[in-house]
Amino acid sequence: MSNVDIFFGEMIGTAILILFGAGVCAAVTLRFSKALAAGWVVIAFGWGFGVLAGAYTAAPLSGGHLNPAVTFGIAIDTGVWDKVWVYVLGQMAGAMIGAVLAYLVYFAQFQANVRQTGTTEGTLDEPVPTLGIFSTIPEIRNPVANLVTEILATIALVLPLLALVGNNRHVEGIGIGLVPGAEGIYGSGIAILLVALLVVGIGLSLGGPTGYAINPARDLGPRIIHSLLPIPNKGTSDWGYSWIPVVGPLIGGVLGGLIYNAAF
Amino acid sequence: MSNVDIFFGEMIGTAILILFGAGVCAAVTLRFSKALAAGWVVIAFGWGFGVLAGAYTAAPLSGGHLNPAVTFGIAIDTGVWDKVWVYVLGQMAGAMIGAVLAYLVYFAQFQANVRQTGTTEGTLDEPVPTLGIFSTIPEIRNPVANLVTEILATIALVLPLLALVGNNRHVEGIGIGLVPGAEGIYGSGIAILLVALLVVGIGLSLGGPTGYAINPARDLGPRIIHSLLPIPNKGTSDWGYSWIPVVGPLIGGVLGGLIYNAAF
Amino acid sequence: MSNVDIFFGEMIGTAILILFGAGVCAAVTLRFSKALAAGWVVIAFGWGFGVLAGAYTAAPLSGGHLNPAVTFGIAIDTGVWDKVWVYVLGQMAGAMIGAVLAYLVYFAQFQANVRQTGTTEGTLDEPVPTLGIFSTIPEIRNPVANLVTEILATIALVLPLLALVGNNRHVEGIGIGLVPGAEGIYGSGIAILLVALLVVGIGLSLGGPTGYAINPARDLGPRIIHSLLPIPNKGTSDWGYSWIPVVGPLIGGVLGGLIYNAAF
Amino acid sequence: MSNVDIFFGEMIGTAILILFGAGVCAAVTLRFSKALAAGWVVIAFGWGFGVLAGAYTAAPLSGGHLNPAVTFGIAIDTGVWDKVWVYVLGQMAGAMIGAVLAYLVYFAQFQANVRQTGTTEGTLDEPVPTLGIFSTIPEIRNPVANLVTEILATIALVLPLLALVGNNRHVEGIGIGLVPGAEGIYGSGIAILLVALLVVGIGLSLGGPTGYAINPARDLGPRIIHSLLPIPNKGTSDWGYSWIPVVGPLIGGVLGGLIYNAAF
Repeated sequence: MSNVDIFFGEMIGTAILILFGAGVCAAVTLRFSKALAAGWVVIAFGWGFGVLAGAYTAAPLSGGHLNPAVTFGIAIDTGVWDKVWVYVLGQMAGAMIGAVLAYLVYFAQFQANVRQTGTTEGTLDEPVPTLGIFSTIPEIRNPVANLVTEILATIALVLPLLALVGNNRHVEGIGIGLVPGAEGIYGSGIAILLVALLVVGIGLSLGGPTGYAINPARDLGPRIIHSLLPIPNKGTSDWGYSWIPVVGPLIGGVLGGLIYNAAF
Repeated sequence: MSNVDIFFGEMIGTAILILFGAGVCAAVTLRFSKALAAGWVVIAFGWGFGVLAGAYTAAPLSGGHLNPAVTFGIAIDTGVWDKVWVYVLGQMAGAMIGAVLAYLVYFAQFQANVRQTGTTEGTLDEPVPTLGIFSTIPEIRNPVANLVTEILATIALVLPLLALVGNNRHVEGIGIGLVPGAEGIYGSGIAILLVALLVVGIGLSLGGPTGYAINPARDLGPRIIHSLLPIPNKGTSDWGYSWIPVVGPLIGGVLGGLIYNAAF
Repeated sequence: MSNVDIFFGEMIGTAILILFGAGVCAAVTLRFSKALAAGWVVIAFGWGFGVLAGAYTAAPLSGGHLNPAVTFGIAIDTGVWDKVWVYVLGQMAGAMIGAVLAYLVYFAQFQANVRQTGTTEGTLDEPVPTLGIFSTIPEIRNPVANLVTEILATIALVLPLLALVGNNRHVEGIGIGLVPGAEGIYGSGIAILLVALLVVGIGLSLGGPTGYAINPARDLGPRIIHSLLPIPNKGTSDWGYSWIPVVGPLIGGVLGGLIYNAAF
Repeated sequence: MSNVDIFFGEMIGTAILILFGAGVCAAVTLRFSKALAAGWVVIAFGWGFGVLAGAYTAAPLSGGHLNPAVTFGIAIDTGVWDKVWVYVLGQMAGAMIGAVLAYLVYFAQFQANVRQTGTTEGTLDEPVPTLGIFSTIPEIRNPVANLVTEILATIALVLPLLALVGNNRHVEGIGIGLVPGAEGIYGSGIAILLVALLVVGIGLSLGGPTGYAINPARDLGPRIIHSLLPIPNKGTSDWGYSWIPVVGPLIGGVLGGLIYNAAF
């Protein structure tokens, strides 16, 4: 894989991931969306199927990591670090593009985020904060606890993912296309489907405290975009919290790789 | 594939798709349905599994496009345009048949769509508008924004779909059966399952603003049927909006094909 | 396959199907169930994964039809009718056993189906009718409309199922194990998973009017058990409606087979 | 497989399973969780995808039983009992570790489990009992009925699982990696996905009365941890009930193995 292929693969794939992920958060958050308040199951499946869409698209070009924590975990596992910076650049670019695309899909809803007559006659609905559509916000602000949550949730992504990739690297029909060098199996098999369902499960089970960033690009890229876009009443971009969903998943990715190498 | 096979394959497959899709919209919309108000997750999975049912059925005859936007995207990718009109005719015929079938499944519910005593004693429930069962309605009427939403949501369908088809065309066990000429793999493999889950994801994530037509036949065919059927209190067929879910998905299909060709 | 294998395979498989299906209806219906009022999506997935569990279990013995309408559709397709009576007997026996098993799983909940102090202090909750746990009840009682609903919903099951079986009969890794004589592929492949998701889709989309019997044994067997079991306040077994979920699905199965033979 | 591999495989896999399972129960139970009150469908899919994550990770080391009832059922089927104690020890260790990990993920939420100002001004919300996050609690306390529920729900797990494993032992691409000795197929194939969906179905359909332990380690390990952890207002660990989710699933596993051996 050339650097150009890796960069564009990760960029396109991560853009699709964030389009789906920020999209589903907009869908359940913004007024005048048909999915308003549709619940946690919708969010978890929306993000998971975003992985499905983005990773299958990116797989033939870059393997479809879409996540610096995954790239770090694979680098720990394989000992190959020289392409990591290309992966991360592509992921960051894609995450920012995806956030803009989700904003465009819900453009009219974002523009309508002003004081409105509520459903009960005579009341007024206030605009909703919009950061949660782009980036994660903890329910309880506690840096140590939030960091632990993100680390553990990311291990729960990277360790099973490496087990899937590693154990099935040479089994036809299951290849995940995530390992640099294994070009022949890019995009084939069901491993990406399994990883997508794994991400659904992480959302359902481990997303409660912090909203499960488990991916530095997924959180930082859209946060940058949120701070730049001219959204009415968009509220804070909460930069004080922004290091936790970057540092936590990176630590989790490294630990996932180390546990995998120790155990298998 | 003969023109007759293509026409009948697309007709049967699209009829099944719309039977499921209009069916699930009736299920959550009409009184005296057991699924009344069952929520957005039900709608998204109902449409997605309609793709599963229709595409696996159509695949051996026509490849199972079921959607002019998909047909356009594949034509852009392959450069073969001479069968496109047969596909689109079959899809339009099937979409109209499917809308009639969904109407028949929910016939008693449609007939009961009149003023009724509500659940609270002494109140009366008004009939519900029925167009949303057949065709899409934007939550906020804004032609440019609605068009952008449909274009982007259709790219999010066609680009991953082409990546799946293209990358796996020669991998046994994953064939999507969508490429004209690749008859040997029709209907086999898991690619149609993956596309079905992709459609679930598009619904969950990108359906909020316009109800995700992402398919001109899916919207126009049932709208024609809605304007013809003698449904009590059926309300407007909203022809003023009808061009957007036709033009938007066609543009999205073409753009999806162009991006795919540029990137892969 | 011997007649004994077919009978026991269908009996065990259908018992598992009904255990899951009647189980999920009990789960959302009866007080003191953790899933009380959990919604339509729970019902549809519960029945669908019951197909998954039952058909994969039965597949090596009998192919895993679990449904006289499926057996009829396959008989129309293959022209082989001499084993149909064995299939149907096994399915009926299994459906009755499964209903008893679901009753045993929810035994304490059924025993508690008496007048109870409600959640609001001072009020009393009445017992709930229990037939809906065992068999289908139309929301609007209209024999012609109910029959049409069951016929169309069954075609939506049998036609895609036959397309899956027929088109993939000789493709390794996708065999559904439903065709008499194709013993080597029993239980392998993903076709049963696809049929299970198809059944989820039928429930979500087409179950609103009548509760989607789409299977004579699934409705008649548990209805017999409902009329026999000593459930407190069990309410009517509604024998006046019982012919529709038998006749409708059988017609649908035959029509599905005829359409399949005509089109493919 | 060495005893060390089996022990560590089962320990890691069961820890992941309980991290997801106890995690999803915390997610829907504890205040200040984004998934608070998200419903039964979230619980069932959270547990099922925990099986997916844990079993695919453990499969190459130990086959991924994660459940003494599964280990007993396989031992009945194969007649090989000498490794059972290693499996069970690993599963118990993993279940306790997983419970601690889930506690750490939701640490801030557990610390906030004190009297709080409610959503309605002037009211106070009481702390919630926390045992249900770790272990099962019956809705109606009736030892015989609870035992029957756990036995039947476990048979509904073990019998289809053995049918999947047994029938597909030699089919490439479907191996579940659960049979001692069949090392070549560990972790490959879709059988673990099918078992994960089966567990979703058991939760949806059969979990209503007792919360579906169907796994002695899943219930006993986290109960021990619950009794040890310093959770504010944690409530009772309910040791009086604790034998039922141990004995019931073990009986169910043995019966599942016996039925499988008799029928196939």
